[in-house]
Amino acid sequence: MPWAEHRDTAQQWARDRAIALWAVFSGDLAEADLLSLRESAAASWEDGAAWALILPPDRVASAAELDLSSIISLGPAAPAPFGLFAAMQQVGVEDVRQLGVIGATRAVLDAAHRAGAGAVVGLAAMPEARLTLVAGQPDVVVAPWDFAALDAKRYASARAHRERVLLNPGPAVVSDRVHRAVSGPDLCHREPEYSEILETVRAKLLAVAGVPDDWAMVMLAGSGTAALEAMTGAAARPGRKLLVCQNGIYGERVATVARRLGTPVVMVMADDLTPIDPAMVASALDADPEIDAVAVIHHETTTGLLNPVVEIAAAARQRGVLTLVDAISSLGAEDLPPLAETGIDFLASTSNKCLHGLPGAAFILISPRGQARIADVPPRSLYFDLGNYLRAQEKRTVPFTPSIPALYGLLAALEELGDEGLANRQGLYQARVDYLDGAFTEMGLAARVAPGHRSRSVRSFPLPEGITYDELHDRLKADGYIIYAGLGDAAQTTFRVCALGALTVEALEGFVDAFEQAVAPAPALSV
Amino acid sequence: MPWAEHRDTAQQWARDRAIALWAVFSGDLAEADLLSLRESAAASWEDGAAWALILPPDRVASAAELDLSSIISLGPAAPAPFGLFAAMQQVGVEDVRQLGVIGATRAVLDAAHRAGAGAVVGLAAMPEARLTLVAGQPDVVVAPWDFAALDAKRYASARAHRERVLLNPGPAVVSDRVHRAVSGPDLCHREPEYSEILETVRAKLLAVAGVPDDWAMVMLAGSGTAALEAMTGAAARPGRKLLVCQNGIYGERVATVARRLGTPVVMVMADDLTPIDPAMVASALDADPEIDAVAVIHHETTTGLLNPVVEIAAAARQRGVLTLVDAISSLGAEDLPPLAETGIDFLASTSNKCLHGLPGAAFILISPRGQARIADVPPRSLYFDLGNYLRAQEKRTVPFTPSIPALYGLLAALEELGDEGLANRQGLYQARVDYLDGAFTEMGLAARVAPGHRSRSVRSFPLPEGITYDELHDRLKADGYIIYAGLGDAAQTTFRVCALGALTVEALEGFVDAFEQAVAPAPALSV
Repeated sequence: MPWAEHRDTAQQWARDRAIALWAVFSGDLAEADLLSLRESAAASWEDGAAWALILPPDRVASAAELDLSSIISLGPAAPAPFGLFAAMQQVGVEDVRQLGVIGATRAVLDAAHRAGAGAVVGLAAMPEARLTLVAGQPDVVVAPWDFAALDAKRYASARAHRERVLLNPGPAVVSDRVHRAVSGPDLCHREPEYSEILETVRAKLLAVAGVPDDWAMVMLAGSGTAALEAMTGAAARPGRKLLVCQNGIYGERVATVARRLGTPVVMVMADDLTPIDPAMVASALDADPEIDAVAVIHHETTTGLLNPVVEIAAAARQRGVLTLVDAISSLGAEDLPPLAETGIDFLASTSNKCLHGLPGAAFILISPRGQARIADVPPRSLYFDLGNYLRAQEKRTVPFTPSIPALYGLLAALEELGDEGLANRQGLYQARVDYLDGAFTEMGLAARVAPGHRSRSVRSFPLPEGITYDELHDRLKADGYIIYAGLGDAAQTTFRVCALGALTVEALEGFVDAFEQAVAPAPALSV
Repeated sequence: MPWAEHRDTAQQWARDRAIALWAVFSGDLAEADLLSLRESAAASWEDGAAWALILPPDRVASAAELDLSSIISLGPAAPAPFGLFAAMQQVGVEDVRQLGVIGATRAVLDAAHRAGAGAVVGLAAMPEARLTLVAGQPDVVVAPWDFAALDAKRYASARAHRERVLLNPGPAVVSDRVHRAVSGPDLCHREPEYSEILETVRAKLLAVAGVPDDWAMVMLAGSGTAALEAMTGAAARPGRKLLVCQNGIYGERVATVARRLGTPVVMVMADDLTPIDPAMVASALDADPEIDAVAVIHHETTTGLLNPVVEIAAAARQRGVLTLVDAISSLGAEDLPPLAETGIDFLASTSNKCLHGLPGAAFILISPRGQARIADVPPRSLYFDLGNYLRAQEKRTVPFTPSIPALYGLLAALEELGDEGLANRQGLYQARVDYLDGAFTEMGLAARVAPGHRSRSVRSFPLPEGITYDELHDRLKADGYIIYAGLGDAAQTTFRVCALGALTVEALEGFVDAFEQAVAPAPALSV
């Protein structure tokens, strides 16, 4: 389902039931449970759910079974799924993901799995019955009288936890392709199948970044900040300094990491709306020969500002200094020349932003010069010891248990990116922010960053008059859109709209409609 | 599917095709692609796959379509899934997860998703056609002539990457309940729906550990080692020391972390097969008043050895010293008294071992005394700054992007544990190792750790004569079982069998059969 494709996708997601058809098998549920369930099911009927009874050929339906069901479908006994498909056809539900099956025995739970049902619910009146259902692998086990609460919480039209169009700076909406991949086979990370996946991901990431095969990749279980910290800790040799470029929260984060690791920091600053000046970096390097590396944020998500990382890296390279780039929210979306020619030696990014994977894995791409530097910097951490990861990789292994679901998701996302084409992906990102810039300008809201410095995904806007951020957020959320607050001082006066992930321009048109309604003055009450 | 339930589950998993039925829709594929696919499909026929053509009422099948298919099923045009179900019924495939659909248009890919197909394959002869298929969210896009390679790699009976019965010390085989949960809704971690999930997980983890609500939980995106490092970094105040109990690789790991963080370490050692002596801990504490905390591994996975953490914590508490417990491979399986009464202040564990979640999330439970200690220890990391996480939680948020798929999986796993019952879970763990101990003793292989100190999940055995570890591993892998190497010096002379996860005693019986065959001398060739 995830793939925000149409103008009305968000509204549809915001209002649909997760399960349109609940099904039970004749003979499966006890009479008392059927009566209790009937009462508990009433709210789901009112919310639009159909109820089906699957009736095997040799059975006669009981009165309680008939009373629970809006339709009866003939079909083979569980665990065969075909009676469930017949029920779908009868009520016009054409997607097994909208089918829910309620069962009190293993055979019915198996039928639900075999049908690919979107909900597999075990029914157990007695606590001791729950244990016997565990091997049937229901999504949840519920007592009959608690079904109404379960339906309201997980499956009803008004449920809170549901898919929404995410306009925050990651995690993003990602495709079913990625969602399906994360639940891949259970895997021991010391097996060659794991190494092969890791090496495939590495090759694809090197290709996205445009670097040759002599670059290394280290994959960490963790967020983008984990990769940032690992990279920062490997940058400056003992007694040397790190120059940090700061014009937003993420630059400040690098400085914090470095200071906590005991690395002396030299700052080159600009305000939140101004790119770092490469000439200032050059001057700072010339003024202090103890600086061993420069760290810069490619895309400052604080405001949606791009920094001139290539020019900064060139200045550093001229002076024999390494450059670290935080590309957490840029890799995949923003232009970068082939890294090998830039002077960039470390580049940190993550699975769940512009690469369209799911959160949980982060990585660092490292040039040969960067790999040599790692060997010269004593690690101040075990988990973030990049040398340890590199040595393990030489033996086709990893030092710690990796985030296998996130890695599966990243591999699928990179295959998807390959099918989409990097230039097309970047074109879509550009088209989306062009649309947003135009639409918000028409509404009298200019993005805070000047046009020449804007990223392809994040926009910071001043908050319209007469509405607080929380009001705006909540009104848009009711329509299925999640916007994001400003950071730090800007939290009270700004908001952010971020177009990352599986999201079309048309979906943003629906968002702009919703935004216009959200900020429109309430109509005066007619007398 | 995961849930190793029967004696022959592993063998079945090792030999089955992932996809038993491939289906195409009449009118969907171009003539040339059908011809090319026909050739490329031959290997899958030989491997046992059926091929179905779905024929809508108004269509006449082409010769090439007929040539590709072993059966024809009447059904509505895509995206309706009902023709696919009819095909399944015709060939006797009763599980949509064994259905694969190949499509060149969006409608067919949608039909595949609506059917819950186990494989959704986009077919594109030209590279530019791939882009148009992306929004159909295929699992993979392939050129017709590459189908044979794709089938061999992902879906055939001889594919390498597949579900196996994992007898390594995590990741474990986990249930479909958990696998299904990890692909839950895309979610922004600043929304209340995220906070509610985190708080639910916290409450369930506190219940598993038997601690009151004044304990804190910090969830990290990372492996168990990440939690271990974060806990270790928060333990000892400046100028004070950490006492580390070491009788295996994991104790050594704590010492390494502490040293890298600049914390002076005092060691209490035992060999790999001997529990740490609480009296030695007490003496060491009495001898050095600068020791601020004691760190001990509950279950040394190196050998499957339990340490007396309760007695060690009691000795520490008597002396006003905090205790840190690595419960990474013990929480959920091993006995622990309610933590609040033990003197244990920090307990680190992870989602993917005895709690039966998937890897990617790790956590630390922290007593009120531990929370106070965190405030007294200057953080030497940003990512592992536990105080930062605790402050964020007070505002119902998290500092960094969490591993949302792993958190979804952990929540489902904890709900499953609730249905199973903690005592039943522990009973199953005990029954499995009792079975293994008996069966291996009969084979003349005694677990290396003495009976009184063995854990409920991991066994280290001496390698039988006449076979190398790699030979043993590979023979068992061919039957669907993954065993694990010994660590360090023991790698050449020992191996490990670990019974974690969704695994019955019957499944271990199948393993013992396979093991006996693997180590049996090759029969002499008859003349």
